[in-house]
Amino acid sequence: MRMPKKAEFPLSEVRRYLEPGPVVLVSSAHKGRTNIMTMGWHTMMEFTPALVGCVIAESNHSFELIRKSRECVINLPTADMAKTVVDIGNTTGAEIDKFETFGLTPVPAERVKAPLIGECHANFECRLHDARLVKRYNFFIFEVVAAHVAPSPKNPRAIHYRGGGEFMVAGASISLRRRFRPGML
Amino acid sequence: MRMPKKAEFPLSEVRRYLEPGPVVLVSSAHKGRTNIMTMGWHTMMEFTPALVGCVIAESNHSFELIRKSRECVINLPTADMAKTVVDIGNTTGAEIDKFETFGLTPVPAERVKAPLIGECHANFECRLHDARLVKRYNFFIFEVVAAHVAPSPKNPRAIHYRGGGEFMVAGASISLRRRFRPGML
Repeated sequence: MRMPKKAEFPLSEVRRYLEPGPVVLVSSAHKGRTNIMTMGWHTMMEFTPALVGCVIAESNHSFELIRKSRECVINLPTADMAKTVVDIGNTTGAEIDKFETFGLTPVPAERVKAPLIGECHANFECRLHDARLVKRYNFFIFEVVAAHVAPSPKNPRAIHYRGGGEFMVAGASISLRRRFRPGML
Repeated sequence: MRMPKKAEFPLSEVRRYLEPGPVVLVSSAHKGRTNIMTMGWHTMMEFTPALVGCVIAESNHSFELIRKSRECVINLPTADMAKTVVDIGNTTGAEIDKFETFGLTPVPAERVKAPLIGECHANFECRLHDARLVKRYNFFIFEVVAAHVAPSPKNPRAIHYRGGGEFMVAGASISLRRRFRPGML
């Protein structure tokens, strides 16, 4: 897998990549251990600060790493990584080193200890912002504190999970920009 | 716009339509007034009960209708409705009747007072399950209590907002079912 070169990206624009609902890979680190999990249940919650809410089930090995370190990186994989995305979801970090097993490159982050996944199209460094729904819903609210995005392609072929082993691959773009009231863009 | 015929749909499978992250239309009713808003910030939170978390900003006319009635319907529009989806987001229910203005058909729901939007591919009737994050984040957690889905096409052309007036239209499906551990489907 290729490692795209990335540029810094405005935090207020993170929604461009996350709002369409792609499956993401969440990388984490705590006390010298790293891990990666596959995640599909997330939503933007605020532009500034850039808040993302997501469900990380307690049964995941990543749960404790993220809860204790209060950090993670949300990484955006593309269709060429689909099999790896499934395999990461099929295995547990309690038994294997996922970076090593799947040939992924841990790249040091700027603002958190969790590593970026070099092969992904975009990497969003996150700090835990609000944990009050963790106990009841496994729902973490993160603030994105640094964003790194490959400048091209502008619209990566993200994959979107439907359940049942089936993914939807991001399709064509349509612009209705001229139809929007400026304040609604 | 066409009104697809729909069948009851298992609540535990609602994720099939919402997890990929489509823009949805939220319909509501309170004291004889109805409204529709466009929404892109939502996530599945649990299979059973089927929980969906979403951000409904206070500035929306729908906010008070939903907060007070504690109900809504999440409707799934398709690409042929894209212009209407934008126009609904551009206007306010404080000034117009959105069903009438946009030629949409309010269909009585089974379990809530908010109307279904007949022209949408799927309709998910929702009751407010947890409001504790409404004040701080405008974040509502709903339980889907009834689901109506058009049996075909199996994979509707949902639209996914990227910001800036641009939508991604749901693309091809790929199945990696045989690669999943059965428990992970």
